[in-house]
Amino acid sequence: MMSPVTEVAAHNVPRTDDRESLHHLLGLEGLSAATLTRLLDRAEEYVGVGVGDVPKRTELQGCVVVNLFYEPSTRTRMSFALAARRLGADVLDFSPAGSSTVKGESFIDTAKNIEAMGVDVMVVRHASPGAPHILSRHLQPHVHVVNAGDGAHEHPTQALLDLFTIRKRLGRIAGLTVGLVGDIAHSRVARSNIHALKTLGASVIVCGPTTLIPREVAQWGVEITHNLDDILPRCDVLNLLRIQFERQRSGLFPSIREYRLLFGMDGQRMRRARPDVLLLAPGPINRGVEITSEVADGPNSAILDQVKYGLAVRMAVLTEVCRSTCGSRHQQRR
Amino acid sequence: MMSPVTEVAAHNVPRTDDRESLHHLLGLEGLSAATLTRLLDRAEEYVGVGVGDVPKRTELQGCVVVNLFYEPSTRTRMSFALAARRLGADVLDFSPAGSSTVKGESFIDTAKNIEAMGVDVMVVRHASPGAPHILSRHLQPHVHVVNAGDGAHEHPTQALLDLFTIRKRLGRIAGLTVGLVGDIAHSRVARSNIHALKTLGASVIVCGPTTLIPREVAQWGVEITHNLDDILPRCDVLNLLRIQFERQRSGLFPSIREYRLLFGMDGQRMRRARPDVLLLAPGPINRGVEITSEVADGPNSAILDQVKYGLAVRMAVLTEVCRSTCGSRHQQRR
Amino acid sequence: MMSPVTEVAAHNVPRTDDRESLHHLLGLEGLSAATLTRLLDRAEEYVGVGVGDVPKRTELQGCVVVNLFYEPSTRTRMSFALAARRLGADVLDFSPAGSSTVKGESFIDTAKNIEAMGVDVMVVRHASPGAPHILSRHLQPHVHVVNAGDGAHEHPTQALLDLFTIRKRLGRIAGLTVGLVGDIAHSRVARSNIHALKTLGASVIVCGPTTLIPREVAQWGVEITHNLDDILPRCDVLNLLRIQFERQRSGLFPSIREYRLLFGMDGQRMRRARPDVLLLAPGPINRGVEITSEVADGPNSAILDQVKYGLAVRMAVLTEVCRSTCGSRHQQRR
Repeated sequence: MMSPVTEVAAHNVPRTDDRESLHHLLGLEGLSAATLTRLLDRAEEYVGVGVGDVPKRTELQGCVVVNLFYEPSTRTRMSFALAARRLGADVLDFSPAGSSTVKGESFIDTAKNIEAMGVDVMVVRHASPGAPHILSRHLQPHVHVVNAGDGAHEHPTQALLDLFTIRKRLGRIAGLTVGLVGDIAHSRVARSNIHALKTLGASVIVCGPTTLIPREVAQWGVEITHNLDDILPRCDVLNLLRIQFERQRSGLFPSIREYRLLFGMDGQRMRRARPDVLLLAPGPINRGVEITSEVADGPNSAILDQVKYGLAVRMAVLTEVCRSTCGSRHQQRR
Repeated sequence: MMSPVTEVAAHNVPRTDDRESLHHLLGLEGLSAATLTRLLDRAEEYVGVGVGDVPKRTELQGCVVVNLFYEPSTRTRMSFALAARRLGADVLDFSPAGSSTVKGESFIDTAKNIEAMGVDVMVVRHASPGAPHILSRHLQPHVHVVNAGDGAHEHPTQALLDLFTIRKRLGRIAGLTVGLVGDIAHSRVARSNIHALKTLGASVIVCGPTTLIPREVAQWGVEITHNLDDILPRCDVLNLLRIQFERQRSGLFPSIREYRLLFGMDGQRMRRARPDVLLLAPGPINRGVEITSEVADGPNSAILDQVKYGLAVRMAVLTEVCRSTCGSRHQQRR
Repeated sequence: MMSPVTEVAAHNVPRTDDRESLHHLLGLEGLSAATLTRLLDRAEEYVGVGVGDVPKRTELQGCVVVNLFYEPSTRTRMSFALAARRLGADVLDFSPAGSSTVKGESFIDTAKNIEAMGVDVMVVRHASPGAPHILSRHLQPHVHVVNAGDGAHEHPTQALLDLFTIRKRLGRIAGLTVGLVGDIAHSRVARSNIHALKTLGASVIVCGPTTLIPREVAQWGVEITHNLDDILPRCDVLNLLRIQFERQRSGLFPSIREYRLLFGMDGQRMRRARPDVLLLAPGPINRGVEITSEVADGPNSAILDQVKYGLAVRMAVLTEVCRSTCGSRHQQRR
């Protein structure tokens, strides 16, 4: 089922009875600990592939991956493009004019047209929560959908790279206390993180202004607080969510100055935190707002590691979803 | 002259004495039945290449194909890009800012600059009728021009994929009656279709509002009507042209509601049509205007087949125009 | 250190003791004659590579080259992309919205994020003079920066292709008299040319309206004149700088008509010039302003040669900067 290159490595992947079919990656909600762990383990194989002395891989040779981004993105799109190319796939960008509102119907027509051209994976970013789910129900069985962010719903590969970075730097996820700080209400990163962290046995604290923590969070089994200073001594990890100025409606948000005073991570606050606290941020960071430069560039920050590991995680996700289809195809071809 | 891969397949291509040189593909007007048939036969070889278990080809390995699109396009550009990559070519996009009016002179200068970088094929879309013809006269002999739509003049690959879809689904083209419905005046798709359908022995009926059927159509040997219902029982194929809102000048067009009533294809009209009528549409379709969803997604519709076959047709066109130059080059290289 | 393909060719490269480390190419100021000559010699190997019968090369196989363009560009970006692909590299475009002013800080953050994804070369164009220099100080040691134009400071690869074209057409650079005509004040092309031409032993005359020749030019060891007709009989080469309408502040510039009369190259002026004068222009040219069509398309013009040789020069630059890192890496890989 796999290319000779991966066959050996595959023995390192822990076999479990819980091999959920990951034909699509639409979100992390509902994925089992075994599946999440399998993805993280697979990403481990891919760290640094295609960089320096480590040659590219061929798992997706002959596959076509389309980036279908209805919201502007440069880094996530680039990360997926590089990940796909390092696996040998062809990558095409399909970016509708960002300004025109895209109706659900034409979104599906567009996708079905792209599908008809013969693609294997559609990496989708869309402003509407659930857009990748809807898409996955309209495509042919051999096409895989990967959610690259749908509204304020999920951003599964971002959360996976957060998990991967935590595991890489701290050696484990279970038993850790992770603080998610900032605008929880509009954050797909927060949602995906909460689901996966809980499943893998971490304790999650969400922390932000009252107006930016939705009430349903209470049902997700997380602790809620509005005071960052209180939780600093307990957190092994702090994930400093980006202030998404573009998502805010007026009235929900304190001033930037007030936000910085209450939730910004600076040198003074670092002294209240655990000495080995791991700092994550989905980026692009607003220096001087949610984090000062001193802290962002300091030893506790793993911000650039996240970007690096993001490649490996996306390679793992692309390989995982294509396992059943592309894998067998290429086996036959050789 | 050809790679080992194509050598065998080439025996399937019918040899005729009428091997017109297709150094460029500027339009379908004036192409012989033998040439059109040769292109369609060649496309037959390429259906599904690079998809699923069918490996890519190497006919254009080492060639550079540039998409030079002066009008916005996503699907045609993507189709050409995928077609070129499936033949082993490198593809580059060159998209001038769509808003700035492009003067003929600077258009040629731009193209000659791109040519100087060493490209083999220029796929050109331009708002001015004849732009690809002008371009072909200014480039060096080894560069090939493919028209991807020039104003309201021609869109040859779109018409070829329409022909291919008809032949694939109905087994032949000669003797069929094909209705072209809608805005004939502004449609390059209609023009290319009329030329090729007539050459291959089909009868063509054009049908639309009086203001949208130009008078010269009468000289093209086609039947003209303004009543869709009248011709439904006689048509083997209906090609439902897209309402190009961007091309209309006020006063020429009935209201959308009126258009839909008179020319929109819906369930009721389908009952007046032949049971096996084949429905084509160049897309993107305006659901509920020229076609209802029920009909677009029904068994008579070949809309997504058209997209799929478009890849094969564009591969055939790229190979055909490059036959003399790239072919020999790569032979030597091996 | 090199691939088998280049090993033989490398013997043709003149060995000197002055092997400056060209880890980055930030500008031509300060580069020695030996280094400039080495780059031009290397470019000689690459003329026509990947075009016609000449196969691609593999020097940068496995490398990732990112085009990071903060100013709009089509031809320079395309030239770098083609050059990188002809060497076997993967190329990615990263183009931030051109309109938003980019702060120095976020520019570095963006670049460090891209770096973290594992890239080898960043080709940078930026409106701020010195941006590539700043960048080079913030990146990890294995990443190479190539300046593709920074404000009015330098545009080294453009000047190198000018030099290459001169040497190719006239056989030498030393001893020639080169006139740079037009807007010297805002021209990075002029600055890079002056540095390199002087180093290689040419005499340089700058010629333009008084308001468009900065006073510091006097210290660069060049002759200054405001009268084109006076210098025509002495110039072996004329480089007709583009009028950069977008860079002009009102009051500095004569009217277009006056500019054309005083500095435009037309048939009449050609009769005053040396019969074998070589005409260069960085393009895109404004026909009828700095040069008439008759002259631009005449036998003395090397404008399209410049574009062609630009590919070879950029291949040489990419190979040169990657020599230490990518070279050894790929050696090991085989």
